[in-house]
This record gives sequence, C-alpha cells and structure tokens, in this order.
Amino acid sequence: MNEASPGQPAQLTHVFPIRVYYEDTDAAGVVYYANYLRFAERARTEFLREIGFGQAQILEEFGVVLAVRRCTADYAKPAFHDEALEVHTRIVEIAGASFGMEQNVFRDGELLVSMDLRLVCMTGAGRAARIPEPVRAKMAGYLVETS
Amino acid sequence: MNEASPGQPAQLTHVFPIRVYYEDTDAAGVVYYANYLRFAERARTEFLREIGFGQAQILEEFGVVLAVRRCTADYAKPAFHDEALEVHTRIVEIAGASFGMEQNVFRDGELLVSMDLRLVCMTGAGRAARIPEPVRAKMAGYLVETS
Amino acid sequence: MNEASPGQPAQLTHVFPIRVYYEDTDAAGVVYYANYLRFAERARTEFLREIGFGQAQILEEFGVVLAVRRCTADYAKPAFHDEALEVHTRIVEIAGASFGMEQNVFRDGELLVSMDLRLVCMTGAGRAARIPEPVRAKMAGYLVETS
Amino acid sequence: MNEASPGQPAQLTHVFPIRVYYEDTDAAGVVYYANYLRFAERARTEFLREIGFGQAQILEEFGVVLAVRRCTADYAKPAFHDEALEVHTRIVEIAGASFGMEQNVFRDGELLVSMDLRLVCMTGAGRAARIPEPVRAKMAGYLVETS
Repeated sequence: MNEASPGQPAQLTHVFPIRVYYEDTDAAGVVYYANYLRFAERARTEFLREIGFGQAQILEEFGVVLAVRRCTADYAKPAFHDEALEVHTRIVEIAGASFGMEQNVFRDGELLVSMDLRLVCMTGAGRAARIPEPVRAKMAGYLVETS
Repeated sequence: MNEASPGQPAQLTHVFPIRVYYEDTDAAGVVYYANYLRFAERARTEFLREIGFGQAQILEEFGVVLAVRRCTADYAKPAFHDEALEVHTRIVEIAGASFGMEQNVFRDGELLVSMDLRLVCMTGAGRAARIPEPVRAKMAGYLVETS
Repeated sequence: MNEASPGQPAQLTHVFPIRVYYEDTDAAGVVYYANYLRFAERARTEFLREIGFGQAQILEEFGVVLAVRRCTADYAKPAFHDEALEVHTRIVEIAGASFGMEQNVFRDGELLVSMDLRLVCMTGAGRAARIPEPVRAKMAGYLVETS
Repeated sequence: MNEASPGQPAQLTHVFPIRVYYEDTDAAGVVYYANYLRFAERARTEFLREIGFGQAQILEEFGVVLAVRRCTADYAKPAFHDEALEVHTRIVEIAGASFGMEQNVFRDGELLVSMDLRLVCMTGAGRAARIPEPVRAKMAGYLVETS
C-alpha cells in the first residue's frame, strides 16, 4: 500500500515485491507464463490480509472462501531471472457474490503483464454466496473507479 | 487426435490426457488455478509436435519461437486429486504473426476449465515475425471455424 | 513394469516415461532440481496404483496415507527441454512402518539423477502406523534385494 | 543474517522468511515435499547475494555458475497453508570445486525440514571448476564448524 499507480491515490493500489528465482523461469530464459498467476495469488493474499481479510479469517468468521472464477493475462514483455518486480493490485468492481481485481506486474515502472480477475465468494460446499456485508463494506473503501 | 469435441471432426481436435498428482493440487483440495496453464502447455506442445512443428524444429528450421501473448481461463468447476482429465486443443484463428487456440479441460465429458490463447510467432531477438509459410499452410488444415 | 534395470527382472522395476516441458526447466536451460521430485511422485504413484495401492484406495480401505520422510537426490547430469526421460522405481526395503524406494531418472539408458526415498505409513492424524498386512504382503513381492 | 541458530553467532546463519501460499501446498493440506527445495533456493540465493556473490555477478566476473550436485531433505513435521516459516542457511564445508550448505526450515523455532546440500562450481560448458579464490576467501568467513 506504499506506492501509487499513475493517477490513483497510493492507498488504493497495493504494491507487492517479487524477486525472480530460477524456479520461476524456463529454458526460454524468461518467467514461465503460468507463474505470473502464482505471483498474483501472493500479492492478492497480502492485499486482502492487510485490509483485514486473511483467508483463514473469512473462512472462520463467515464460512466462505474466495476462488478465482476467471482470469485474463496479457503478456506484453518478458521478465528475466533475478529481476525485481512489483505486482500492483486494485479492486475494480464489487458485485453481489463476486468482485473484480486488476493485477499488473511492473519492472522499474514498465508494465510487463496485466491480469484481470474475477473472484467469487463460495461456501465450503462450493456454492456461490453473497459477499458478507462487513467484507463488502471494507472492500468498498478500496474500490477504484475505472471508466 | 483420437476424439472429437461435439460437432467437430475428430482430427481437428487434439485430445491430451492428464492425471492429477499431488503436485497439481493445493490445500483447498483442488487443482491450483495456475496449473491448468501448465496442462495447456503440455497439450499444445504435443499437438504442434504431431502436426510437425516441434518447438526445437521450428526454431532450427525457421528461426522462430511461439510465445503466449494472451490467455484467458474460465474456471467453471474444480478438478480433484488423482482424477483423469483431458485437454482438448483446437486452432481457432490464424493471423499474420499470431494464431488463436482454444484449450478446454474435461473430466468424463464435463467441461471444467476453458482457455483461449493467442500465440505469437517471434524471432530469437523477441520481435514479432510472420508465421512461416509452411507452418501456416499446415496449420490451416487444422483450423476450426467457430462462429 | 515393462522394462528392466540392468540385472533386475523386468517386473520388479517400474518404468515411467516423462517428457520435459518448459514448465520443468529453468533459465539455466536445464530441468530445475526440485522438479525431479515431482517426476518421482508421478512415477511412484503409478507404480503403487499398478500393484493395487492407489492412494485413495489405501486411505479408504486401511485409513492410512504414505508420506515422504526422507529424500536424497544425486544430480549426476542435467536433462534438457523437450527430452524424453524415464523414471525407474524399485522397492528396496520394507520395515515396520516405512519402506525404502529407489527412483532413478534415465535418458537413453544414461543415469541422470538417482533418488533414495523413505516413505512412512501414517494415520490421518499424522502418526506413524504399521504398514497394513495386505499392503506389506503385496509389496514384498516387488522387493528388490540390493547388496 | 539477523538471527542466530542455537549456539551460532548471528552473522553465520542467514535467516530468510517464507510465507506459505496456496501454490506451495497440496491436497493433503500441507506444503508439497518438492517445494521446500524451492524455498531453499530462494534463501540460498539471498544469502550468496548478501555476502557479495549474486549469481549474475559470479558468472560475469569469474565465468562460473553454482549447481546443486546433491540434496538430502529430512521431513520431520509438515507446514501448513498461510504459515510464516524461516529458512536458516549456513555454509558447513568448503572444498576445491564444491561446498556444503545446511538449510533448515523452522516455524516458531520448531525444526520442520532439514536439508543438506552440496553445490559445485561449474564452467558455462558444464565442467567442474575450482571455486574462484575471492569467492572462497569470502565464504571462509562464513564457514560454520560442525563437529
């Protein structure tokens, strides 16, 4: 939460640092395409933890889990071994049982990969559930208006 | 190439079997969302190898590599440990320097995850390049018309 | 079960094919060292399934799971992208609550990585448990005498 | 480098924090056994960077890379989703072309997994090479005497 994307107040964009290790790369010399989704999960988890919704906590308190329902990744430029990256995460939509997130991976301010995700709120039994009111209210304070 | 998606001739849809091992799952008890992109890469690689375009071969012969430029994954239903899945792969568009693929993951005929990918043809130096004519001609024979 | 290691009857050594995909390699151009343990799990799982002990089955029937307690991996030579490898798996020791396996990765008959594993039988609650008698009896038929 | 293992001066043991995400776990509810080797690589890389031997740097300066030649992992207790772990790394032996490291994973001071590794110094062509003198001299200052 300590840095802003252009045109957004700092506190609405969560910034998470990633160091690229050998495990993240492939023989083409770049970060393997599926691994950006791993980076995104780490960043998302820390964002939600910071605003008060650790995954263990919302399961215990409200009986729900968050699951990725849809994910689009746009690979503009590659990242390489040993580089320092940042994942910028924002909440861009809040619906009844789901919400939208935008997660962008930057290297020195340059956009490498942009991801759009839809997460759904689910019961332990795997059925869609309304986002619990306290979670929705808290999230609303972090909602970024994108036109 | 031994099984058809509904309404498609068998030979245009490549079918690749996947067994789900512990490595593929997570503590939520299901296949981790990023791992479907690993499954898709395996299936895609074998499809292209079967139609004559192993990755080592097109690099050597034409000096190009194929890279994922965009990927959308729709997670309809979860897959579980030890299940037998299938990845169905089809070519759905061929453009100048890129082509579109559809990759769907099934369990016993039930669609679990559908992925749409755009792959680009690139030089070793990382610049977009036209799909080499022999590759394009061969691919065209596998193009599926989707409306 | 269709091929022998030198000096062993075919039926005691389980042979599992592995194709190396980009996901398995790293920017050093070789298979990433941790991924041989993923290959080994796949091979082990299929070996145990073939001799009648699928993991779901022994949990259901005997209430136990198998967990890796110790693993040693010796990396003699690297494997590369797109290569066809084999994992050769053998049972080399059977004790009260644990057993020993040897898992070797070959490329065209050349040994690349050799792994020694100790697996323990555990209750769902995580305590060591004796190997169920039917499992032990079946395993004994596959025990390889090593010096 | 900010915390000591029992009986060792703080500066000889490198401490690296790990948070367990879904990507690290499996359907048995615990951290997947191969993933501790990924944690170890991250910790090792940061240790070597801190003492002045980033991997890009030693390749550029001395023309060598470090590769894992042997790894033993002892899995004493499982780690779970969302836990905060630490990897404690120490240099325990320095030989001509290789050195030994001990990497232990702790949760709240409790040892979960202990790993012993032998790393070799190699030329780009894949042949063993003597550890460059400046690297050896620097490493010697971090050598932990284990009896």
